[in-house]
Amino acid sequence: MQTKNKKRIYYFSKELTEGNKSMRELLGGKGANLAEMTSIGLPVPPGFTITTATCAEYHEDGEKLPAGLLNSVHKNMSRLEKESGKCFGSSQNPLLVSVRSGAAASMPGMMDTVLNLGLNDLSVEGLASMTGNERFALDAYRRLINMFGDVVMGIDHHYFEAAFDKIKKRYKVSRDTELNIQGLRELVTAYKQIYKTHTRKNFPQDPYKQLQLAIEAVFRSWNIPRAITYRRINEIQGLIGTAVNVQSMVFGNMGDDSGTGVAFTRDPSTGKNEFYGEFLINAQGEDVVAGIRTPSPVKEMKKWRPDIHQQLLKVKKILESHYKDMQDIEFTIERGNLFMLQTRVGKRTGPAAVKIAVDMVKEKSITQKTALLRVPANDLNQLLLPSFDPKAKRRVLTVGLPASPGAASGYPVFTADEAVVRAENGENVILVRRETSPEDVHGMHVASGILTSTGGSTSHAAVVARGWGKCCVAGAGELVIDAKRKKIQINGTTITGKDIISIDGTSGELMLGDVAKCPPNFSKEFKTLMNWADKKRKLLIRTNADSPEDAKVARDFGAEGIGLCRTEHMFFGDQRIVAMRQMILADNEQDRRLALKKILPYQRKDFEGIFTAMKELPVTIRLLDPPLHEFLPQDQKTQKQLARSLKVPVEKIIKRVSQLHEVNPMLGHRGCRLSITYPEILEMQVRAITEATINCRRKRINAFPEIMIPLVGIVNELAVLRSLVEQTIAKVKSKKKYNGKLDIPIGTMIEIPRAALTAEQVAAYADFFSFGTNDLTQMTFGYSRDDIGTFIPEYLKENILEKNPFQSMDSAGVGQLVEMAVNKGRKIKSKLKCGICGEHGGDPESIAFFQSVQLNYVSCSPFRIPVARLAAAQAVLLEQ
Amino acid sequence: MQTKNKKRIYYFSKELTEGNKSMRELLGGKGANLAEMTSIGLPVPPGFTITTATCAEYHEDGEKLPAGLLNSVHKNMSRLEKESGKCFGSSQNPLLVSVRSGAAASMPGMMDTVLNLGLNDLSVEGLASMTGNERFALDAYRRLINMFGDVVMGIDHHYFEAAFDKIKKRYKVSRDTELNIQGLRELVTAYKQIYKTHTRKNFPQDPYKQLQLAIEAVFRSWNIPRAITYRRINEIQGLIGTAVNVQSMVFGNMGDDSGTGVAFTRDPSTGKNEFYGEFLINAQGEDVVAGIRTPSPVKEMKKWRPDIHQQLLKVKKILESHYKDMQDIEFTIERGNLFMLQTRVGKRTGPAAVKIAVDMVKEKSITQKTALLRVPANDLNQLLLPSFDPKAKRRVLTVGLPASPGAASGYPVFTADEAVVRAENGENVILVRRETSPEDVHGMHVASGILTSTGGSTSHAAVVARGWGKCCVAGAGELVIDAKRKKIQINGTTITGKDIISIDGTSGELMLGDVAKCPPNFSKEFKTLMNWADKKRKLLIRTNADSPEDAKVARDFGAEGIGLCRTEHMFFGDQRIVAMRQMILADNEQDRRLALKKILPYQRKDFEGIFTAMKELPVTIRLLDPPLHEFLPQDQKTQKQLARSLKVPVEKIIKRVSQLHEVNPMLGHRGCRLSITYPEILEMQVRAITEATINCRRKRINAFPEIMIPLVGIVNELAVLRSLVEQTIAKVKSKKKYNGKLDIPIGTMIEIPRAALTAEQVAAYADFFSFGTNDLTQMTFGYSRDDIGTFIPEYLKENILEKNPFQSMDSAGVGQLVEMAVNKGRKIKSKLKCGICGEHGGDPESIAFFQSVQLNYVSCSPFRIPVARLAAAQAVLLEQ
Repeated sequence: MQTKNKKRIYYFSKELTEGNKSMRELLGGKGANLAEMTSIGLPVPPGFTITTATCAEYHEDGEKLPAGLLNSVHKNMSRLEKESGKCFGSSQNPLLVSVRSGAAASMPGMMDTVLNLGLNDLSVEGLASMTGNERFALDAYRRLINMFGDVVMGIDHHYFEAAFDKIKKRYKVSRDTELNIQGLRELVTAYKQIYKTHTRKNFPQDPYKQLQLAIEAVFRSWNIPRAITYRRINEIQGLIGTAVNVQSMVFGNMGDDSGTGVAFTRDPSTGKNEFYGEFLINAQGEDVVAGIRTPSPVKEMKKWRPDIHQQLLKVKKILESHYKDMQDIEFTIERGNLFMLQTRVGKRTGPAAVKIAVDMVKEKSITQKTALLRVPANDLNQLLLPSFDPKAKRRVLTVGLPASPGAASGYPVFTADEAVVRAENGENVILVRRETSPEDVHGMHVASGILTSTGGSTSHAAVVARGWGKCCVAGAGELVIDAKRKKIQINGTTITGKDIISIDGTSGELMLGDVAKCPPNFSKEFKTLMNWADKKRKLLIRTNADSPEDAKVARDFGAEGIGLCRTEHMFFGDQRIVAMRQMILADNEQDRRLALKKILPYQRKDFEGIFTAMKELPVTIRLLDPPLHEFLPQDQKTQKQLARSLKVPVEKIIKRVSQLHEVNPMLGHRGCRLSITYPEILEMQVRAITEATINCRRKRINAFPEIMIPLVGIVNELAVLRSLVEQTIAKVKSKKKYNGKLDIPIGTMIEIPRAALTAEQVAAYADFFSFGTNDLTQMTFGYSRDDIGTFIPEYLKENILEKNPFQSMDSAGVGQLVEMAVNKGRKIKSKLKCGICGEHGGDPESIAFFQSVQLNYVSCSPFRIPVARLAAAQAVLLEQ
Repeated sequence: MQTKNKKRIYYFSKELTEGNKSMRELLGGKGANLAEMTSIGLPVPPGFTITTATCAEYHEDGEKLPAGLLNSVHKNMSRLEKESGKCFGSSQNPLLVSVRSGAAASMPGMMDTVLNLGLNDLSVEGLASMTGNERFALDAYRRLINMFGDVVMGIDHHYFEAAFDKIKKRYKVSRDTELNIQGLRELVTAYKQIYKTHTRKNFPQDPYKQLQLAIEAVFRSWNIPRAITYRRINEIQGLIGTAVNVQSMVFGNMGDDSGTGVAFTRDPSTGKNEFYGEFLINAQGEDVVAGIRTPSPVKEMKKWRPDIHQQLLKVKKILESHYKDMQDIEFTIERGNLFMLQTRVGKRTGPAAVKIAVDMVKEKSITQKTALLRVPANDLNQLLLPSFDPKAKRRVLTVGLPASPGAASGYPVFTADEAVVRAENGENVILVRRETSPEDVHGMHVASGILTSTGGSTSHAAVVARGWGKCCVAGAGELVIDAKRKKIQINGTTITGKDIISIDGTSGELMLGDVAKCPPNFSKEFKTLMNWADKKRKLLIRTNADSPEDAKVARDFGAEGIGLCRTEHMFFGDQRIVAMRQMILADNEQDRRLALKKILPYQRKDFEGIFTAMKELPVTIRLLDPPLHEFLPQDQKTQKQLARSLKVPVEKIIKRVSQLHEVNPMLGHRGCRLSITYPEILEMQVRAITEATINCRRKRINAFPEIMIPLVGIVNELAVLRSLVEQTIAKVKSKKKYNGKLDIPIGTMIEIPRAALTAEQVAAYADFFSFGTNDLTQMTFGYSRDDIGTFIPEYLKENILEKNPFQSMDSAGVGQLVEMAVNKGRKIKSKLKCGICGEHGGDPESIAFFQSVQLNYVSCSPFRIPVARLAAAQAVLLEQ
């Protein structure tokens, strides 16, 4: 229970400012920054913030405003009236306020806003006479009823839109602004009727009633599904609620000396140090964000009002030097006066994050450490996104705004739901919308790229896409989208859902067909940041690679060896799979050995290729892991073909397939269990590795293989197999008359809980441990990755699981086993090399854990290597 | 490496005895006891024992006798020659010796023996003149060649037998002993020829060569497959090898004043304190053990040689008072002189073990503690074996010897391999053999009972069967077994492999048909022992029971509550399964609730029944655990029937079955995961439990349910579900207007590694922990119980696993998690009740572990309860 004396409201104005930027948890980001901007002398309309704790109280009490809150609201409103000399609800000089949500973490477009509160049938006349602009006053009123009806009372927006369209038709005007006063009066009446029809109440004339309902609506919006979804997708946790900002209205739509805009202090796409943004003359702020009208670039403001442009550049300087980071601001110009409505740290693409961080170090604004910590490691992925091949032919259909960089191709889809369905079918899709809204986020999330026909680079689509590093082209105004018929018309060309299109988020181009892409080209800032990271990090970064090609890519990304070279893929391919199948179908060891002999030269050649690509660096080779049934055809047709080609009765194949069938293959006859029952497979693989090593060394290619035995759960498995590996190596050396040292380390994967629990036994026979956290997660949780779809979504939704443990390692359970195994292992062998080769090796949060338990290396897929390098450095910096 | 000075041979005779009974590890059981018997003045033919360590050396050196061993053998043989006044290999007064194996653990019939060593073409004449019995000397020689050829050189016994038969035919005699001297000479020649044909060498005339080869053969026999199999089946571990006993020969076949026998100091079947055994006049010891001739009961010796009978009774007394346990002895009478050839602790049936232990306490020979520790807890199972219903009609075909008690019915099988095949098919089989041999053990192991036509109650079949508590009727001489045609003829009745027969191991009867059985009747000694055990043990013993019937049986066995009441069986049964399937096929929660409502009354009634049977005692009910697909038919025919009866399209059923299909169902959507996604199932079950409790209490039946939530891996699962259970209980209480206290504990199974690892979190929401060590073993090892058949046999064979971890809990891995969870849980709640309800709850070794980590109870199947009670007491005694 909250005490009665708890301070629930923080005021901000030139005269009294109670909050500051450090109070983000309590006041939300917007509220804390409004207070801060007021303090440092920027022009901010006065107002107050109701705390996030109040929102928590509201929900704890079963959606009831805490007692005493409305009293405090009254007191603060009175102060606002006094300072502005206006009066809330007055028919003479009405005070109007906005009510906006603002949580501690930025959630663009997710929470709700109501403007122009305080207007009613009386005060609208007061506003008209005060501003001398009846048209404006009526427009403000109809906006209030619309927003209030939609946001607070849940009336679908389209009812209002339809009424507007009807009246515009009657008055024969096409644009909203063209409607005359008479039309607006009719519109207000129509809106009030819609309100009454849907709520069975009149639109509230008591401004305090409006305020109360609006505050409650903001509180409620904290827990609506789309807000919960957004928090989950963006991994926003631990927040208690949203704050509510009540602020005096300023109007950008008071005529041609008014306007509104949003801007970034640097380019959020590229990071270039240029004031970047858009504004609309004679418009309210929501018009820009919603992307309904296409705004002008902010630099064109020089032509319109050079004084205000100058003023804004000054604001940029003040904010950047105060906040020491790129800012995302909202501003309104009311009759030539600039007002700041918001500042917050600006979202940016990965490339922009890197450039801004490195530039700010050069500008001596921040330290290297701050720079390293500021770039979200996962965002580096965006720098590794392919761009279109400059040599590829482009059939450009139109050019929109380059809203989020990258290159994407796919089938156009016209609704978020369709995007989800087709993406689940494995298709690449581009979500095509006139504009996007928070209702579309699930479709945006699965799409390869986003294309809109209206809205600018700060529209919903653009902001969300950049946050995810997803390619987006916005405001492509030439598109005629027919969502119902699933068609797009552009300058005479028709695109249907069956045509692949490509979009270039860097140029804004929309192209027909699947345009060829090429690998990314790293900026010098990226290289600088990676250099700084490499100096700080302690973890080595290896890669998971099974081919010379992958090994090469990984080396270019900075891999310091291969941590996981899977050998199973080497058993596929025309000739090999035939021999592999012969081996599996063989009735005795002799026949198995004959078949394996045929595979040997291929494996040896594969290893030689990988060793050559990775020369001088270690290559950890995992011996055959999957169950044998994966190598046999499961369908009758292929079984028959196989029978013909191997000249065996098909019954034999069917029988073997059925023998190999397992109820729970994940827990079945695989990994080192295969090597125990079929030691000849291990012998062939070790022979291939050893021969390849000797062949490479004789060609002066320094190969450093490490042999890794998977799925060990009992020390004896490793003891027996280690000895077999050693014997096989010795045999090959003697047969090849190689007298040099080979020193091939023999280690094990720790991926079965029992191996971790008995690591002090296992360590005695292991030169290294490599944690297979995928399988370890499966067995520690008792989950099958193939089957979790049935309950994990529910678990995430209900917050039973904070995260999918296959994405970010569960440190409490799986991590406990990892730490235990490292400690037990190093008790026996103090220098035991420990690494991790599960998919968590490329996840920053998991990497921080691996640093904390002092692993020697992480191994991840080639494209995650820069992420891992940065994350490893961040982990060290955060430990300090 | 062994040092040169290592003592490898221990001598025993009246003049010098170097070993004693405490040296069992080094000298083997037989060797240690030969030395001990010599020391306490019993008549033992002198000899010496080569140590088990020497056997280990032999195997470590790649099957090579250690240097110096043969020298030591020579020295000891010389002493033997001196003491006996005979000479090894002499043509005048030859010394003959036996060579026998003897490991530290008794392994009857598993290891090999050679008698009469020292005979050759010369010394056989010496033996003839020394004994004045040429026939005897020649018979001894042919036995040597036969045994040596078979055991040492691996020549199949049947070659010798065929030669014998041929000569007997020629001489027109039917019994071995009827062959005259001329025939025996021919037989020796024929045997030597067989030896030469198969070994390409002459039978060795150098007696020391014979001795050396025999010693090596004994050493080798340690590692032959059947010895390894025997050790595995009997869980004999940690032994390094077998000792070799070289002992002067005495002969029971020197005429009608000679004989040989084996006996137990008490009845090994019933435990009655009566000298019990058999002897054969004019025979060698192997004839009794092998069951080739049917011997006479030892009490009949009174008629033959009352003096020797008296002497034997004295020996019984001396041995029992010396060893303080029932002994199994072998003796030989050579021309009226008694010689003891072996004593060892006698194998006995479970009932005998109980009776002997309790009797010996009454006789003040041993303490209660010794008595409790002496009865192998697992053997109590035999006391719980059913016997035939005395009221059932028996069609007795013949009566054999009651060799091992119990009642068994099944199809007759005629080879061990057939027994294995049919048993694997789920059939009960009775292994029917003329006699059994060590080659048959795998078939004996899987058979329900064993029936032989020759051999007595100390024959191979009888000894092995009693060791396992398996029903056995031996020496049913009227049987005419035609193994080839799979038929038995008995007094005109023909039995084929398709007829079920029944054997009564207590009466010796063979009956046609599947005779009805009835539950066991406990002896007063059993009750005494259980009483003693109950006073010592700390663990409570609960049972796993799903029905009132099982609950009642368990209570009679001493269950102190139900530790695991599975509810899934309650969803089957005609009406319920229909409703259950309706629920699974429902598209929405409402329809699911409708279907569940139909199941509710059945579940409530089930619980009322169980509560009534278990009144005053706790009943732990596990909420629904298996995946839903287990409730739907998987075959098309039944799917079609279901579709018709539910009036839904069959496609809907097929679709749902395929939706529910999982790649790894063990790790899938089951346990509490079901309750999270379908809370209505949990609500129905908790409602049924609560209503049943209230109904019972109102009828003054004190019901104490405990609600157990399965498969928890994340504390939030338990937190959410606990709260739902509490709410549901509260709702039912209020609806039923019940104001009494219910206090239903809500706990969780710990069966997922992560639950154990995070037990301090889980404990906060759990009133108790119940370890599900079956699933915990599956996940800790990464094994699927359904699939381990492919590699576990190999693992056990190769000693990679010492035991099947599903039979005896793996303390190093799984046990570590159990201990961790108990400690972490009790850190939060010092009195947290902890129990175990996996199948390990009835395994004595696992129970010792559970005692050591201070669980409160174990829960096992009803028939394991006495075993658990005794094992729990033994665990406490062994801790002291």
